[in-house]
Amino acid sequence: MTTFNIASPLIAIAGQTRQAASKLAILSTEAKNQAIEAIAQALESARDQILQANIADCEAATSEGIPKPLYKRLQLDEHKLRDAIAGVRDVGKLADPIGKVQIHRELDTGLILKRITCPLGVLGIIFEARPEAAIQIVSLAIKSGNGVILKCGKEAVRSCEAIVKAIKQGLSQTAVNPDAVQLLTTRKETLELLKLDKYVDLIIPRGSNSFVRFVQENTRIPVLGHADGICHLYIDKAADISKAVPITVDAKAQYPAVCNAIETLLVHQSIATEFLPKVAEALQERHVELRGDKRTLELLPNIVAATEQDWETEYSDFILSIKIVDSLEGAIAHINEYGSRHTDAIITEDSTSVETFFGLVNSANIFHNCSTRFADGFRYGFGAEVGISTQQMPPRGPVGLEGLITYKYQMTGDGHIVATYAGANAKAFTHQDLV
Amino acid sequence: MTTFNIASPLIAIAGQTRQAASKLAILSTEAKNQAIEAIAQALESARDQILQANIADCEAATSEGIPKPLYKRLQLDEHKLRDAIAGVRDVGKLADPIGKVQIHRELDTGLILKRITCPLGVLGIIFEARPEAAIQIVSLAIKSGNGVILKCGKEAVRSCEAIVKAIKQGLSQTAVNPDAVQLLTTRKETLELLKLDKYVDLIIPRGSNSFVRFVQENTRIPVLGHADGICHLYIDKAADISKAVPITVDAKAQYPAVCNAIETLLVHQSIATEFLPKVAEALQERHVELRGDKRTLELLPNIVAATEQDWETEYSDFILSIKIVDSLEGAIAHINEYGSRHTDAIITEDSTSVETFFGLVNSANIFHNCSTRFADGFRYGFGAEVGISTQQMPPRGPVGLEGLITYKYQMTGDGHIVATYAGANAKAFTHQDLV
Repeated sequence: MTTFNIASPLIAIAGQTRQAASKLAILSTEAKNQAIEAIAQALESARDQILQANIADCEAATSEGIPKPLYKRLQLDEHKLRDAIAGVRDVGKLADPIGKVQIHRELDTGLILKRITCPLGVLGIIFEARPEAAIQIVSLAIKSGNGVILKCGKEAVRSCEAIVKAIKQGLSQTAVNPDAVQLLTTRKETLELLKLDKYVDLIIPRGSNSFVRFVQENTRIPVLGHADGICHLYIDKAADISKAVPITVDAKAQYPAVCNAIETLLVHQSIATEFLPKVAEALQERHVELRGDKRTLELLPNIVAATEQDWETEYSDFILSIKIVDSLEGAIAHINEYGSRHTDAIITEDSTSVETFFGLVNSANIFHNCSTRFADGFRYGFGAEVGISTQQMPPRGPVGLEGLITYKYQMTGDGHIVATYAGANAKAFTHQDLV
Repeated sequence: MTTFNIASPLIAIAGQTRQAASKLAILSTEAKNQAIEAIAQALESARDQILQANIADCEAATSEGIPKPLYKRLQLDEHKLRDAIAGVRDVGKLADPIGKVQIHRELDTGLILKRITCPLGVLGIIFEARPEAAIQIVSLAIKSGNGVILKCGKEAVRSCEAIVKAIKQGLSQTAVNPDAVQLLTTRKETLELLKLDKYVDLIIPRGSNSFVRFVQENTRIPVLGHADGICHLYIDKAADISKAVPITVDAKAQYPAVCNAIETLLVHQSIATEFLPKVAEALQERHVELRGDKRTLELLPNIVAATEQDWETEYSDFILSIKIVDSLEGAIAHINEYGSRHTDAIITEDSTSVETFFGLVNSANIFHNCSTRFADGFRYGFGAEVGISTQQMPPRGPVGLEGLITYKYQMTGDGHIVATYAGANAKAFTHQDLV
């Protein structure tokens, strides 16, 4: 998969990005923050051009019959742009994640090992309609010392071109080479980008589940993100119903389009008779369609029957499937079978059940007596969120700036050789951690 | 790639391993350490059977004309077995990597977030001739709470069967279900294993470069390891030759078969005349074959000419390619072009050159005035090494037990819902880190 047409202009672009990124990687915090402020100012100066370009995008999209939710994401008014520019300045205020010493150890007198955080290199970010996503991503990339190749959705091309033009103009007066930021606009380039594993260190796809899955299956570059968000809420037999009902409503209906909303409600059989009619009433007030398994239908005869497919579906809508389980273990087995390792929660007053649930549910976020909707980098206090990963390896769950960095081992000696520490008269290492 | 024959017996095995691993994941440190001690004792009790099985493996291998280095790795005498069992007890003494609290934060009163380390789940370890590798791997897996599916080389099947039989027998008297450890023995099973991305969380291949590359290219499971180890030593114009010569000899000749030995020596033009004849003499005393670029040949007319291919070859042997570069930047460009991001070192007394080298060389291990051979988990003081990764994302470089773990976010509330923190009267998060 690493073979490609050497004549590809994308390789030249990626090479320039890599070159600029390697210089950006060693800039001081001050220099990076100056560049971020220059971006904010350049975006302010280019406000009219950006908004004009967005109007043109919106008009073209309307004439092509763009669906309403997509149109709302595409539209960039003065207010949204101002917020996005404020977001750039917020990123400037975040702590610099680069150059942190994670390990500082003397291996022997004069032989000193350090493990130090450094940027990943070049990020490939593929997003869809929201043009202000480009603004946020670029500021996070610069802050973390990474180059970034952006690919925007075709609806947002004019807006993103205006934004990236302003950003590059802003950077041109700073220590950051504007080549560190690139914009691609065609689907053909997306496919090429996925092949550039020599030039791109991380892909972050933002889009539909099927698009993310497509990216995961078509690149050798590490992918940060998640295809599905099939989250569960389990109401234990020892649940406090006065907590369980509002948490269920919040987890499903507060904002059902997002990945941390629940799709399936699991209910312990011994609490179902009391709990289900109450929660059904509360959910139906919020216009949530309910689909139940056989036992649920006995208690809620007016709802739709759930099929096997419901347990594996992310509705992202006002629909909730409900299943009655015999035990905590039954709930855990269902979650580990059908869940997507994103976020799952238990409502109970029994601390032993919590311990079992926390220990045996294999998801990035596991909650007790609170809504799954809290699974979010901003709510966790990360200051920024670059994505939510459902992979098993770190970074896992909501990922802030730390998902854009890696580390190097740096060692300094004074002529030290391994032969000294080998063989019959081998010298021992001291392995003293230094403060 | 996730489709497979549902009738595969390997899926049943992997499912059992996963089941046993999920119980192992929540065991206490004491229970895991007891299991590790039980393994050590069971191996001691089965010593005769293991050594007998190894003799049978060695005889079969000899009759098939096994190459001598492979035979040496296959052979397991009483001494090697005793050392391996001592190694099991050493793993017992390592700190438990599981259950560590990495983040402990109040999001709001009564809403408490923790990030806690946990096992990856099931490891797939593919190794070749060395039977005692199975012993080390199993003890590291148990310590880190992971299930493990081992696949040994065909030469070592009898030895590994005897070892795993003893290990399972030892575990049968402990809290660890013996199903947590499995042994596969055929190449067909290796190919199946690589497809089990629903059951296996990490593959660690130990073998030839081409085998590791094959694994990397044929699985969707994360792979820990490295295909190539093309390491460089750069002798700067400000090098102290009394350090440069012994470090070069150590980095090449102390043990050339390993991945952290150097393959290419880069020499600044202004020190080449003085340095190269001295280092050539020292290397030739150690029977190292030298291959030089055009300018090197002018100074060392009796050595072989290097071709383009030499710069991208891991000899793993007493061969060294030498290139004269015009500048530090030229050395860095060569390393970033031909290196494998493993380990690269600079010899210099100039701190500015060190800073530039450390900043711009994109390798997992970057050294100054010491041998590249120090790039090793044991030498770094990790107590164990599960592999060396040359990927850009963490874990990178020598990886100890921390490469076998991940983390979960666990949150406990008291009926908290997201609606409280949204909209016009949104409550603010407190985001207080707790000690």
